[in-house]
Amino acid sequence: MKTLITGGTVVNATGTATADVLIDGETIAAVLAPGSTLLGFDLAANVDRVIDASGKYVIPGGIDAHTHMEMPFGGTFASDTFETGTRAAAWGGTTSIVDFVVQYAGENVLDQYQLWHEKAAGNCAIDYGFHQILSDVQDSSLVAMDELVAEGVTSFKLFMAYKGVFLSDDGQIVKAMQKAADNGSIVMMHAENGSVIDLLVQQAIAAGDTAPYYHGITRPWQTEEEATHRAIMLANLTGAPLYVVHVSAKQAVEQIAAARDNGQNVFGETCPQYLYLSLEEQLGAPGFEGAKWVCSTPLRSRAEGHQDHMWQSLRTNDLQMVSTDHCPFCMKGQKDRGIGDFSKIPNGIGSVEHRMDLLYQGVVDGRISLSRWVEVTSTTPARMFGMYGKKGVIQPGADGDIVVYDPQGRTSISVDTHHMNMDYSAWEGFQIDGHVDTVLSRGKVIIDEGQYRGTAGDGRFVKRGLSQYLV
Amino acid sequence: MKTLITGGTVVNATGTATADVLIDGETIAAVLAPGSTLLGFDLAANVDRVIDASGKYVIPGGIDAHTHMEMPFGGTFASDTFETGTRAAAWGGTTSIVDFVVQYAGENVLDQYQLWHEKAAGNCAIDYGFHQILSDVQDSSLVAMDELVAEGVTSFKLFMAYKGVFLSDDGQIVKAMQKAADNGSIVMMHAENGSVIDLLVQQAIAAGDTAPYYHGITRPWQTEEEATHRAIMLANLTGAPLYVVHVSAKQAVEQIAAARDNGQNVFGETCPQYLYLSLEEQLGAPGFEGAKWVCSTPLRSRAEGHQDHMWQSLRTNDLQMVSTDHCPFCMKGQKDRGIGDFSKIPNGIGSVEHRMDLLYQGVVDGRISLSRWVEVTSTTPARMFGMYGKKGVIQPGADGDIVVYDPQGRTSISVDTHHMNMDYSAWEGFQIDGHVDTVLSRGKVIIDEGQYRGTAGDGRFVKRGLSQYLV
Amino acid sequence: MKTLITGGTVVNATGTATADVLIDGETIAAVLAPGSTLLGFDLAANVDRVIDASGKYVIPGGIDAHTHMEMPFGGTFASDTFETGTRAAAWGGTTSIVDFVVQYAGENVLDQYQLWHEKAAGNCAIDYGFHQILSDVQDSSLVAMDELVAEGVTSFKLFMAYKGVFLSDDGQIVKAMQKAADNGSIVMMHAENGSVIDLLVQQAIAAGDTAPYYHGITRPWQTEEEATHRAIMLANLTGAPLYVVHVSAKQAVEQIAAARDNGQNVFGETCPQYLYLSLEEQLGAPGFEGAKWVCSTPLRSRAEGHQDHMWQSLRTNDLQMVSTDHCPFCMKGQKDRGIGDFSKIPNGIGSVEHRMDLLYQGVVDGRISLSRWVEVTSTTPARMFGMYGKKGVIQPGADGDIVVYDPQGRTSISVDTHHMNMDYSAWEGFQIDGHVDTVLSRGKVIIDEGQYRGTAGDGRFVKRGLSQYLV
Amino acid sequence: MKTLITGGTVVNATGTATADVLIDGETIAAVLAPGSTLLGFDLAANVDRVIDASGKYVIPGGIDAHTHMEMPFGGTFASDTFETGTRAAAWGGTTSIVDFVVQYAGENVLDQYQLWHEKAAGNCAIDYGFHQILSDVQDSSLVAMDELVAEGVTSFKLFMAYKGVFLSDDGQIVKAMQKAADNGSIVMMHAENGSVIDLLVQQAIAAGDTAPYYHGITRPWQTEEEATHRAIMLANLTGAPLYVVHVSAKQAVEQIAAARDNGQNVFGETCPQYLYLSLEEQLGAPGFEGAKWVCSTPLRSRAEGHQDHMWQSLRTNDLQMVSTDHCPFCMKGQKDRGIGDFSKIPNGIGSVEHRMDLLYQGVVDGRISLSRWVEVTSTTPARMFGMYGKKGVIQPGADGDIVVYDPQGRTSISVDTHHMNMDYSAWEGFQIDGHVDTVLSRGKVIIDEGQYRGTAGDGRFVKRGLSQYLV
Repeated sequence: MKTLITGGTVVNATGTATADVLIDGETIAAVLAPGSTLLGFDLAANVDRVIDASGKYVIPGGIDAHTHMEMPFGGTFASDTFETGTRAAAWGGTTSIVDFVVQYAGENVLDQYQLWHEKAAGNCAIDYGFHQILSDVQDSSLVAMDELVAEGVTSFKLFMAYKGVFLSDDGQIVKAMQKAADNGSIVMMHAENGSVIDLLVQQAIAAGDTAPYYHGITRPWQTEEEATHRAIMLANLTGAPLYVVHVSAKQAVEQIAAARDNGQNVFGETCPQYLYLSLEEQLGAPGFEGAKWVCSTPLRSRAEGHQDHMWQSLRTNDLQMVSTDHCPFCMKGQKDRGIGDFSKIPNGIGSVEHRMDLLYQGVVDGRISLSRWVEVTSTTPARMFGMYGKKGVIQPGADGDIVVYDPQGRTSISVDTHHMNMDYSAWEGFQIDGHVDTVLSRGKVIIDEGQYRGTAGDGRFVKRGLSQYLV
Repeated sequence: MKTLITGGTVVNATGTATADVLIDGETIAAVLAPGSTLLGFDLAANVDRVIDASGKYVIPGGIDAHTHMEMPFGGTFASDTFETGTRAAAWGGTTSIVDFVVQYAGENVLDQYQLWHEKAAGNCAIDYGFHQILSDVQDSSLVAMDELVAEGVTSFKLFMAYKGVFLSDDGQIVKAMQKAADNGSIVMMHAENGSVIDLLVQQAIAAGDTAPYYHGITRPWQTEEEATHRAIMLANLTGAPLYVVHVSAKQAVEQIAAARDNGQNVFGETCPQYLYLSLEEQLGAPGFEGAKWVCSTPLRSRAEGHQDHMWQSLRTNDLQMVSTDHCPFCMKGQKDRGIGDFSKIPNGIGSVEHRMDLLYQGVVDGRISLSRWVEVTSTTPARMFGMYGKKGVIQPGADGDIVVYDPQGRTSISVDTHHMNMDYSAWEGFQIDGHVDTVLSRGKVIIDEGQYRGTAGDGRFVKRGLSQYLV
Repeated sequence: MKTLITGGTVVNATGTATADVLIDGETIAAVLAPGSTLLGFDLAANVDRVIDASGKYVIPGGIDAHTHMEMPFGGTFASDTFETGTRAAAWGGTTSIVDFVVQYAGENVLDQYQLWHEKAAGNCAIDYGFHQILSDVQDSSLVAMDELVAEGVTSFKLFMAYKGVFLSDDGQIVKAMQKAADNGSIVMMHAENGSVIDLLVQQAIAAGDTAPYYHGITRPWQTEEEATHRAIMLANLTGAPLYVVHVSAKQAVEQIAAARDNGQNVFGETCPQYLYLSLEEQLGAPGFEGAKWVCSTPLRSRAEGHQDHMWQSLRTNDLQMVSTDHCPFCMKGQKDRGIGDFSKIPNGIGSVEHRMDLLYQGVVDGRISLSRWVEVTSTTPARMFGMYGKKGVIQPGADGDIVVYDPQGRTSISVDTHHMNMDYSAWEGFQIDGHVDTVLSRGKVIIDEGQYRGTAGDGRFVKRGLSQYLV
Repeated sequence: MKTLITGGTVVNATGTATADVLIDGETIAAVLAPGSTLLGFDLAANVDRVIDASGKYVIPGGIDAHTHMEMPFGGTFASDTFETGTRAAAWGGTTSIVDFVVQYAGENVLDQYQLWHEKAAGNCAIDYGFHQILSDVQDSSLVAMDELVAEGVTSFKLFMAYKGVFLSDDGQIVKAMQKAADNGSIVMMHAENGSVIDLLVQQAIAAGDTAPYYHGITRPWQTEEEATHRAIMLANLTGAPLYVVHVSAKQAVEQIAAARDNGQNVFGETCPQYLYLSLEEQLGAPGFEGAKWVCSTPLRSRAEGHQDHMWQSLRTNDLQMVSTDHCPFCMKGQKDRGIGDFSKIPNGIGSVEHRMDLLYQGVVDGRISLSRWVEVTSTTPARMFGMYGKKGVIQPGADGDIVVYDPQGRTSISVDTHHMNMDYSAWEGFQIDGHVDTVLSRGKVIIDEGQYRGTAGDGRFVKRGLSQYLV
């Protein structure tokens, strides 16, 4: 299968080019001056398909480096399977995810790793890689880290919260960081002070403050700032690179920025929900509706200016990329477990389908530039997690993961039209001044003319290298 | 003329690709998967020349955004003409310069602008653009700013030092910044407190401290830090973007970093001399030899750690690019005017030929990554000064400004072998673990097999757009 | 004359004591456990007068280290003479001022110094010292600095604004700082960027923005922050101690705090107007009324939080003391010169009478502690300017400068009742939950039972030593 | 007993006075102008004793707010009892200590509190108060906090290290801080990350790094900086005042300084060992000798500049006071338990006898001023811990706790001459350019003419009020 995309504006992380893109098989064969010919050779006549991208952006497919498909949590599972979740991602212009293998405290890391391969294999619409979660880090987990790096799993997520479930204490974190400093992998951190949060939650419930709003109140910015600083210091001690997930508090960003200015390899990710949504408006919605937006770190106060600061930090590169932390739960049968006790609401928001659109809206709104859009949603995730060259860029040799994005199109987000397996949308009513027209995954058109053209199993496991961000 | 560069590693600012590059006429026509064929079409057979780049890097030609060819200064001129200077640049893998039109206090801006066109036209080996120096900003200069933007001169340099020659007072700076904020241009700043420096120089000379070393002592870091902070605040007040030239003091970098974290559009450039050379070793050389390295801002103390901090700041992006501030003077007949009085030594170092090599050595030494090398020497200068797309990247539509760089080659720097019009080398004896093999300027090979193949006048004026770094 | 003050709460800078205070002649002879006896010796029977201070605070008399009595300015004079101004000060519990000898550019420093002695001698109700203003620092002024230190004038004020009138350029400032570093005196700085302000004023007037409100708009915080940072750097370079007068912008405080944390001898003073009044409410009053509060630095925006930050900074010791910058002008015949052009309004506010009350209200409001009140209004001014031991503390050997302050009393501020020579009050309607009952100056009761008991000429010149704040 | 101290220089926290001091019974009755008479009344003739302090300093007795007399630790006890330790303190000019009631995890707080009263009662040479240690904070401990405040124990020490022994987790810390915020007490924090330290110690021992030097290596500055920041954030969350004990890392000071500039009630104490001694010189002494200086936080690297930064921070008030953390262990039978395993060396240094001298040497060396010496060793401890008025100042009503200090005297420190119950001196060979001549405790001379004149049991329990430092 040979495809030529003609006449579009190719957008890479440093700027744009008016160029044609030729995909031969699964791979980009050439990026060419527009016109469908090369040295007189008629390209259009020698390909199977020509896609006219005139007036549109041709961008590397989105990479969502933080998803939790069918994640087991408290007796239930995140409502998107690898099949439904990756298909929804495709609809939204995302052509790769990096999902998390979950190892709960007490489980064996490599067993879980195999299990996740079984869950994903044959089901995915797009390519997928894995990060490995390490809970309550044991010595066997340290050994597994070396094996997993060899398998192409080069990033390991630790938790400073969720005692007895995910949490590792500081000594355990240091041990994992020492290993990462040694084998070149990167440590991802859920940076919230769980010990303090557990207390505040218990006190709130005891005081009768049981509504979803108190999920936010019991995870104040100090708990995120503190844990972020602590993670940075432990990384400083060990020499390990550190990637802080789902940053939502401006004070946490300040810690990250200070460490970076100081030359330390510290990185920060935020999510669409922290750019757009707030404690007051969403979590504080009447009755139990706030449950839709219960996620951790929590939505922050708009009055305190966190959302504007996240946008600014994306612009200044104090934050480097945007993932979704996609972890959907339905209101009925899942979120509703927490009626009368917010601490029982499964934590998570579903956004894997909307990330590219929501960030593009930031371009329209003057928050970030067009090339920065591509950088924070695709190029940096690829470089950060060892996929660049194959992913994250439109250049020869790269996988044919390409999105034709129409700046004249419009997208309305609604539970009625989305493709995620959720009975509500966290983004209901959002209007985007742009539209995902065509999506190619390794050269195959999977979204086109408003139709899904792919098949479960199209997506393959991505064996990742070490982070390409570290000198 | 059609040229195919085959088998090399193409390096852009975000990473590498193994790819062939086809240049058709002056422009890159395609970047292709290696193998010299496309859909069965034999490229090699259809081009005029094939350059084998196997085992080598194929990079966008260097852009030196800070040069002073034949600059008039105190009755003499910088010793490189546009002809000799740009040819030397070509030898070193630089395919574009942005030189400064000099308007001294009392002169007319647009007259000077025309004069500089006359100096450069027909003489340059490579493409050239202009920044405009505005001294002692007058109202007519403000009017000229709009005209010059229309001419493709979109950056204006002001001075906080050199009273009566270059200096603008703070009110004048604000006026120019207000204009820049209005017309989208960028203000470049020579940030040293001239009033204090003039006093310290006078006191030093009066005290008999006349050796070149005192050039550094009389321009202490406080004078750079102070002026940098002041420029940032004036930019903050007016909303103008600010680009600080030749940053050498770590404390100045800290001011820039703080402003950037705060979301202000502030940028900083450093130069090879501030990365490698020092107050103690070079400026403090015995006798009058230190005169070779008299430049402003001055070389800083290695004991205070400025050099390491400059490298770190390049890595962390607290500094964004590296130019040379190329302003050569010969020891004999020029620098020697300052024997017995360092303040009479013409200020300047010649490095336009060596920047690409010296920065590549930073890659070899583990200071920066390969892609960061390209970014700080070519991609960012292009984006910063409105040339990206044509310059600073290897992609279709870009000018065929390409360097084939051999990491197996070796380069020894010496006055005996360099091509700049200088009677000494500021870099004598430096050994580089790499070598510029082939240089193309708009598709024409101008350096090849150790020979200069070009002609004076090959280079054309680049009409620049507004900075592409500003959202 | 022997006086015993009995039963009061003596407040010093570190805390309180319930104690009697015996003044013998001009000097405090003893501080004693309450009861009017000592080892059986009946004190009350052996003094001329007993003042019952039960239920009241006995504090060291206030020291206002920043006043401008009868200052010549633009063809007029500040409306308080040394006689009226010091008498008003006495009414308000201030027993010492340090006024500024004005040397305008072109005048001779020592001539002016003599002139000021003539103005003050025989006229003052309370003790007075002098700071010396140095404008457009000349070499003769540097010589005068040594002579003045010997005279007990150990602090020198420079200006970074008011070109042609007061301003010294940065080189001149460095020269004065070098001298101060050498002779142990302290440099006081009016830290505003005059060059920028002059431009903004000119632009505002040209745009028809002539109301008093624009006085504030044309002196934005950046002009104060910038000059403050610059002064700090020049002090850093020279090793001179620096005292920044009338700090009003929170960003300027941040610069001072950073320098202090860094170990530099930098100090900051604020004034009551920056603690209580604002750009929006006072300067922005309808019509020309805002002229009442035209002073420089200007009142700052309450929305930006400067006032709260000044209080906090007083508490954290990032600012060390409170003076008034007393410089009164009447609305009629003085301020009204600026109708139609705010730049012609004489700059200044009169507060010398109200400082102790206004700061005491900060105690009532929980802003500062009782001992901090004494510290910022008396003890620190004494230590800062070389008077401690004689002034600023209640201990044996100190001058009998004492205020009996009644926390049960009430004070209403109004033009109808104040004693300053002004036709309006900048503090009209302010209610204070406390009252100055009795004031002693060197042992003589000068305010008592609502009467002024003193005589012009009671006050003597204070020959000050070097700052006692510097190790 | 009536005593008159004549002719000395009385030093208080804000400056000096030449004055006589009269003590009547246990209390200071008057501070008087020198001359031994008052209004003709002959004081000398009416007292029991006259002490001539001509040429000497008369200072408030030292307050050592951090001692551990006979502290049980790992099966042994700190080698000074309340009797020997307080007597040694008296020899060194310290007239009050605040010792720590130890409650180990599992013990009952109030039981321990009673036990400590039993240990101290009847044995002390000087007055003593108690802080209460809370380990592994339980709900019953929270209740005890209120009772203890009523008892005059208004400060509570928590630990972030020593798991299973002292450590409280972050949730427990927050609970105690919530209580402190509520009842007005102050939280003292041992700020080291115990979890990380435990790991590093285990790794060092496993690697054969068993010498005392590794005690320092396994407690790197990051572990102190991190815990300090964490404690500050938890205090920020709860509104509790925070007092960080034994600060030794400059990075920890920076955290404290930042919090203070931000208006938070955070305080820091350092100790003489962190001002004078280092990792390289003392801990790194040959063989097992370094054990003499094993204490936690550890001695820091001089090459990194911590010691100079501690002095600077004392000067800038980023640190507020100096205690000893007196916790002596003999080399023989105690420290020697750690031969072959540094982790078994009892932690602690004995300095209670030398603090006043060591800090006075800082005055001689130009590190701090004379009044700052008194402030950091006496006045601030008194204010910080609710004793001011009775302690920490020479003024009427204060306890007659007075030291006559001779700046012409000399003191040599040695195990041969010290009075602490230790078989070595951590300060062997230190020479002090001053000498404690006479010490009075509540009016009674206890040290005089090189003799101890007191009796065990002279010292009484000090029922403290709330901190006087908090507005």
